[in-house]
Amino acid sequence: MTTSILSQINGPEDLQGLTLNQLKQLAEEIRRELIEVTSRTGGHLAPNLGVVELTIALHRVFNSPADKIIWDVGHQAYVHKLLTGRRDRFATLRQLGGISGFPKREESPHDIFATGHSSTSISAALGIALARDMKKEDFKVVAVIGDGALTGGMAFEALNHAGHTKTDLIVILNDNEMSIAENVGALSSYLTRMRTDPKYYKGKEEIEYILKRIPNIGPKMLQLANRLKDSVKHLVVPGMLFEELGFTYLGPIPGHDLAALKKVLHDAKALTGPVLVHVITKKGKGYLPAEENPDKFHGTGPFDIATGQSAGGTGPISYTEAFGRELVALGQQDARIVAITAAMPTGTGLYHFAREIPHRFFDVGIAEQHAVTLAAGMATQGLKPVVAIYSTFLQRAYDQVLHDVCLQKLPVVLAMDRAGLVGEDGPTHHGVFDIAYLRSIPNLVLMEPKDENELRHMLYTAIQHDGPIALRYPRGNGIGVPLEQQLRQLPLGKAEVLREGSQGWILALGSLVYDALAAAEELAGEGLDIGVVNMRFVKPLDEDLLHRLVATNTPWLTVENHVLAGGFGSAILEFLHQNGYQRQEVTMLGLPDQFIEHGRVEELKAIYCLNQDGIKASCLEMLAKRQQKTILVAGK
Amino acid sequence: MTTSILSQINGPEDLQGLTLNQLKQLAEEIRRELIEVTSRTGGHLAPNLGVVELTIALHRVFNSPADKIIWDVGHQAYVHKLLTGRRDRFATLRQLGGISGFPKREESPHDIFATGHSSTSISAALGIALARDMKKEDFKVVAVIGDGALTGGMAFEALNHAGHTKTDLIVILNDNEMSIAENVGALSSYLTRMRTDPKYYKGKEEIEYILKRIPNIGPKMLQLANRLKDSVKHLVVPGMLFEELGFTYLGPIPGHDLAALKKVLHDAKALTGPVLVHVITKKGKGYLPAEENPDKFHGTGPFDIATGQSAGGTGPISYTEAFGRELVALGQQDARIVAITAAMPTGTGLYHFAREIPHRFFDVGIAEQHAVTLAAGMATQGLKPVVAIYSTFLQRAYDQVLHDVCLQKLPVVLAMDRAGLVGEDGPTHHGVFDIAYLRSIPNLVLMEPKDENELRHMLYTAIQHDGPIALRYPRGNGIGVPLEQQLRQLPLGKAEVLREGSQGWILALGSLVYDALAAAEELAGEGLDIGVVNMRFVKPLDEDLLHRLVATNTPWLTVENHVLAGGFGSAILEFLHQNGYQRQEVTMLGLPDQFIEHGRVEELKAIYCLNQDGIKASCLEMLAKRQQKTILVAGK
Repeated sequence: MTTSILSQINGPEDLQGLTLNQLKQLAEEIRRELIEVTSRTGGHLAPNLGVVELTIALHRVFNSPADKIIWDVGHQAYVHKLLTGRRDRFATLRQLGGISGFPKREESPHDIFATGHSSTSISAALGIALARDMKKEDFKVVAVIGDGALTGGMAFEALNHAGHTKTDLIVILNDNEMSIAENVGALSSYLTRMRTDPKYYKGKEEIEYILKRIPNIGPKMLQLANRLKDSVKHLVVPGMLFEELGFTYLGPIPGHDLAALKKVLHDAKALTGPVLVHVITKKGKGYLPAEENPDKFHGTGPFDIATGQSAGGTGPISYTEAFGRELVALGQQDARIVAITAAMPTGTGLYHFAREIPHRFFDVGIAEQHAVTLAAGMATQGLKPVVAIYSTFLQRAYDQVLHDVCLQKLPVVLAMDRAGLVGEDGPTHHGVFDIAYLRSIPNLVLMEPKDENELRHMLYTAIQHDGPIALRYPRGNGIGVPLEQQLRQLPLGKAEVLREGSQGWILALGSLVYDALAAAEELAGEGLDIGVVNMRFVKPLDEDLLHRLVATNTPWLTVENHVLAGGFGSAILEFLHQNGYQRQEVTMLGLPDQFIEHGRVEELKAIYCLNQDGIKASCLEMLAKRQQKTILVAGK
Repeated sequence: MTTSILSQINGPEDLQGLTLNQLKQLAEEIRRELIEVTSRTGGHLAPNLGVVELTIALHRVFNSPADKIIWDVGHQAYVHKLLTGRRDRFATLRQLGGISGFPKREESPHDIFATGHSSTSISAALGIALARDMKKEDFKVVAVIGDGALTGGMAFEALNHAGHTKTDLIVILNDNEMSIAENVGALSSYLTRMRTDPKYYKGKEEIEYILKRIPNIGPKMLQLANRLKDSVKHLVVPGMLFEELGFTYLGPIPGHDLAALKKVLHDAKALTGPVLVHVITKKGKGYLPAEENPDKFHGTGPFDIATGQSAGGTGPISYTEAFGRELVALGQQDARIVAITAAMPTGTGLYHFAREIPHRFFDVGIAEQHAVTLAAGMATQGLKPVVAIYSTFLQRAYDQVLHDVCLQKLPVVLAMDRAGLVGEDGPTHHGVFDIAYLRSIPNLVLMEPKDENELRHMLYTAIQHDGPIALRYPRGNGIGVPLEQQLRQLPLGKAEVLREGSQGWILALGSLVYDALAAAEELAGEGLDIGVVNMRFVKPLDEDLLHRLVATNTPWLTVENHVLAGGFGSAILEFLHQNGYQRQEVTMLGLPDQFIEHGRVEELKAIYCLNQDGIKASCLEMLAKRQQKTILVAGK
């Protein structure tokens, strides 16, 4: 039997009876399962291959869920899911109605704290540990955090507090020398020194060894030797940085050696106070294509197991690629342009810029707050920083956007990739709040392109603009439109009327413009004449156009890939109110006031009517409302 | 002449000719000026008294504005303002139309980067330094950051990046052993060790001294000695933690010793790469009441110079005090209640809780992100964490509120003090965006009490609620209403009709309810009958009531101490839209789409019509609009 051991693991307790060799076999079986399932569903393969032994050792040494294991970011919790009773459902990973790609409290008592964004685990773990102390309970709390996530400021805030409290808390530093791309930052260099040059930190042992061998020749020498011993007490030890913050440091430990892992976790369990266990793992371990290309296999779509090649057609260029390539072209013409990413050179498409214009490219680590304020600093010196951060991660830098960029009217370009529904990564990753949190900030321009070509014009426009400006664009392939050679500056706050209509208007944002056009054409076939506007700007709105459309005395449908509360439709209502246009009928299409589950983008869009069919149905509803009113008035 | 030297300083260049003794006299004159002016205007006295010598030394050694000095938080920039041409206007400090209490780019070329919130300076300084390198310019960049601000995660993100880039950058660590209250955290202990026990870090020198004295007795001993020398290379030095992050560490330096400061700053200027200068200062230095009570004099209102006593009457209990005291009473009855502050025990009123129930009180340092996720972790264990953070600072934890608290529906209470206009601290501190950034988050309840008594009921209600709940309340004194003995649970999402009206309704939030009542009474005297509703809940809205009010067929006025874009009035518009109530007339009163200047709260409220007069005028406008319509309809 190939999966003879894994098939018998229904919970962590089933690990207890296994020998070391059996655990090793289990690790192999888990690797096969991870590769097999993600080759079909897509997912975060490389991070999970890196923590197979670590996860097995954790569940062998600790007693989950009585002991609490918290996974930072959480995309590396697949092995944890396989070992905690979700083996049977594992093939539904990341699919609509299936298990989540992240820990989720609703899913299992072993999922202690939901994650998705980085660097939260030590805070959550410390909260749990302090609650335990207060309730005089007795269990262990373990946070598993990558070296990349450790560069996020809130992880440091939590280390600082944990070291101060002196409570029992174990932090496993899963050091794979990468966040998603290769790690940057001084902390990373520090970890590398510990990994690669243990002698560097051997000072203390070395000197103690020598001290023992100093011959005792007279009282003066004795006195010297004693003073030396005294000094040695405070010499460098590995992990000094963590020790200075109040942690006991254990490591570095080879992270694919089950015996070593078990031993160090037992040691950590026996210690009191905050403990940091430094474990060295390899992303993609055990699957050659992922070992060789951990960045690509960090999060992957379906792929061919034998070759590691992505499955499926390529389709049109993605928004990300269109953005990344265009920024290089613009950067080559304009020396003021600087590109900044928070550990996402590939995900944001900035790897092109990094390769072509490396001296103006900055990867700051998983540090969105710093990224935005760094850009603000650069902007004061006449540079044109373009900060590319996923919509959901820019939430981390909300205050910096407001306080450092917009309050000072600094010309920073915020490129928000993955805006709108992102699909399989689910509720922690949908970028569906950015309009609400950004449009109330003074001085900010906010736009959304209808397609990958317009994205390029908007990027050009943003760089020409002398003030804060944000653009949001979705995950995935573009529409497949031709990419125009000549970029042009779009007039600020001007929408684009794509289709005139005598019976009503669809005011659409982003790629939904195409769904709106298709719906309008379908309706035209049914004798209904609906206009379509590509709004382009959420802020400022195209007020001239809106005044004109009010004058047509026909109903409107607003369409956005965003929550309705505080969103684009809400901004339209505010416009109508400010101008006394109470009679203007508006139907609003967008996401409801709830967190949206995971599933394919198309599936989710269908559920929430954010596609051609949904827009068509909403148009019919809008027209029916109008007709009722007309009947009502006529019948009076 | 008492101010003979200060009166001749029109810019930093005027410091150049002065002798050390003259600089010392200048320091004294500046202290007198600081005390004198803030005793009248109020302001951040203690932090500024602490940096008098440091600021003089900085402007003597560096050449501002060619060299860039960036003040973290910025409330300690008064001395900088006095030395950079704003001496004449210094008496207008923090007053409407006067100079700001923070650095402000519009105010002076010496104000390189506006601040107000903590921990941004290293990011901004690094951005400026990298821009300088890119443009091949030649100047120095200096960030001045307190030990408190260094606990903020983004400061660490920036240190990590700066250490990696190896660019020329000087960080002055202004270590006064306090943020606003006494500092907490492992970093603070680390700094204390360096300050108080230099021997702790004398290992290296000590051993080198001893090594030189080991007699050379034979080749074996020689070999040992050599190995020892080799080991010593990597021994602990002071500031190891910063050295490990790539900084050259200089210090600790006595921060009121002008000669020592000048020397170390010259040394720092001569070094290349990132340098951290550790300066020890005393908050409140030179004014005994502030030295003895630096927390009180961190930010103070007007006071009597001779005694240090606050000037002016005390007035009703503040919202902060009502909150702080009530939480103690509740905490004494309910062992699940935990209080969390991010370095603001006094400002949030939690010092009561800290004193009475210290084992359930947590000050996490200036670390809002960690504070919120720590609370989320505690909430998973059945505790009831109350996180008290000013509205403007909660912006830092927006993602944690969304991703860690609300997504998991965890019962965390967010107590947002200083919501609405805060007055003299100005645009960086007004808490006027929280409704917009919070009301789009699913699962969150958001409320605002009309007075200090209702605040206590709301706090009680929040603690009983099994889910995320936020309450916003303003800075300053309450209304002066009696504090009821018995707390009661307010029904969720239910408003309070305070006055029925036949001609229209004021839907008001927070203490503006009282202005609305007064306006309504004044209007009643003029024969106009306007109802007043204390809305209490922004989310969920009291839909039952709103349906009833729509049925009265009279116009509404919404009133909020918040920006209109995405705010409470906007939520009302969404309700009307969702229910097809297009005919409902609404006038919205709130703040415009711009950052609001500094000035007294009453002055600012008057400017933006957020007071009795403004509400009355808006009511008249609302009624006039209605009358016009009636005439229009009648004339048809």
